[in-house]
Amino acid sequence: MEALPTDVTRPIGVFDSGIGGLTILKELRRALPHEHLIYIGDLAHSPYGSKAPETVKRFASQITRHLLSRKVKLIVVACNTASATAGETVRQLAAPVPVLEVVEQGAAEALRVLEELGEEEARIGILGTETTVTSGIYPDTIRMLADRRGIPVPAMQQQACPLFVPLAEEGLWEGELPDMVARHYLDDMKAFQPQVVILGCTHYPLLSRTIARALPAGTRLIESAPAVVKSVKLILEEAGMAATTGEGLTEYHASDSVDTFQRLAGRFLDTHLDLVHHIDLDACEDREE
Amino acid sequence: MEALPTDVTRPIGVFDSGIGGLTILKELRRALPHEHLIYIGDLAHSPYGSKAPETVKRFASQITRHLLSRKVKLIVVACNTASATAGETVRQLAAPVPVLEVVEQGAAEALRVLEELGEEEARIGILGTETTVTSGIYPDTIRMLADRRGIPVPAMQQQACPLFVPLAEEGLWEGELPDMVARHYLDDMKAFQPQVVILGCTHYPLLSRTIARALPAGTRLIESAPAVVKSVKLILEEAGMAATTGEGLTEYHASDSVDTFQRLAGRFLDTHLDLVHHIDLDACEDREE
Repeated sequence: MEALPTDVTRPIGVFDSGIGGLTILKELRRALPHEHLIYIGDLAHSPYGSKAPETVKRFASQITRHLLSRKVKLIVVACNTASATAGETVRQLAAPVPVLEVVEQGAAEALRVLEELGEEEARIGILGTETTVTSGIYPDTIRMLADRRGIPVPAMQQQACPLFVPLAEEGLWEGELPDMVARHYLDDMKAFQPQVVILGCTHYPLLSRTIARALPAGTRLIESAPAVVKSVKLILEEAGMAATTGEGLTEYHASDSVDTFQRLAGRFLDTHLDLVHHIDLDACEDREE
Repeated sequence: MEALPTDVTRPIGVFDSGIGGLTILKELRRALPHEHLIYIGDLAHSPYGSKAPETVKRFASQITRHLLSRKVKLIVVACNTASATAGETVRQLAAPVPVLEVVEQGAAEALRVLEELGEEEARIGILGTETTVTSGIYPDTIRMLADRRGIPVPAMQQQACPLFVPLAEEGLWEGELPDMVARHYLDDMKAFQPQVVILGCTHYPLLSRTIARALPAGTRLIESAPAVVKSVKLILEEAGMAATTGEGLTEYHASDSVDTFQRLAGRFLDTHLDLVHHIDLDACEDREE
């Protein structure tokens, strides 16, 4: 196994099926002003949430190989579906480069908040895409983390919410229509009365007010972004890999057209992104087969 | 230019970004019991509707090359987005094999119905994905067909309806939620008072009752499937290429997993599809670059 790369100017790679991971990138950019960040949005293959695990694995491998060719010092899988199906594949390909993925970060944060609340009958709700929910990755990860900490495994209930992604991408974050969609998905979840609900898709934080309205008052919504930022900082500092001077570059790469990425990302982040590059992820040299 | 293939047992190729084109395939299967039909659903890259034209062209070229390797005698582009952005590319690649696409068929049918109604101020509404609407392919095609027939160009209004595809795929075809989504998109269209409205996406016929409720009573909804069937029959008969004996095979190929295709298609057509094959459309030999 190679040693960890130690050049602090090496970039951090962040990827998602599309623009959802920008909610993570934004927080990283704010917290780590000196780091060079490379974001890859695989819009040509978006969304991952309804696709088969082996297909998502193939896409994630292509992106990981590309990021490694850019000599990244750390990879953030900023897509719950990719974390759920391809997290292990990315880790193996990338080693010894450390890989952080949103599922483990979100699950850990949910348990932390539950402990803080100190409820006797802990209940966690999990919202995600069809592929993430079917994979069972959140319940598995929560069980694993609870065992590791020697605490009881909380009661869990999952709900797939396929319309949330197109609602978020259309900018329909609040209003009568999103409220009705949220009630459609969350009536059973409301009855379950969870203390915390994991927003298990990077698009969902945009709908957080709408989601909160459809759940019992006081339900804590868990986003993975703050936990990801904390873990990235910790890993870089402990390994002596943190950049500490200069203004960090942010590069955006889209596997679909640059225009499409700018249009969607602009609506999504309410800002205009100037420097977006095209990237061909299907190029033969990037393929495994 | 090669001569047209004349072996009547050669298959007909039908493709779509996913399962929407099955609404066309179903009608072809019913009307042409002796024909061998090959359906390709490009689920790995689905949906096309929000992607850039050059990306969709690349996907459509891969599929066309695959169908040509199967010696098809005719190709049906059963996806409005692919018709809008890659119709010409597919035609050039396939020549001399004839190519029919849903946009021209739907536009012609809309004009035919308008003529039948004999209204003085003809108004056509067009519903489609974001990419289809932005392409302007329906207004362009309607203008071209009207000019060719020497009739006045009708007034036209377009509306993109991005949530209709996930609603259709989730099986949410009727009810309070689809009604609200339809009203959200169609309030302006209702005020326009079109005599005919083109369902410019192969998913939309599943929502036709909901769409009808959001429009003025009596609005005629135009699907492309019946027009496609009529044209396919005509072309095959005129060229002496129609199969007239035996039971026609139906082959399904999915670029995502077979399970995903079966699950979505089953929900979509309310039937179980046994023979679904996996197809790798990203394979290098199929690539242009």
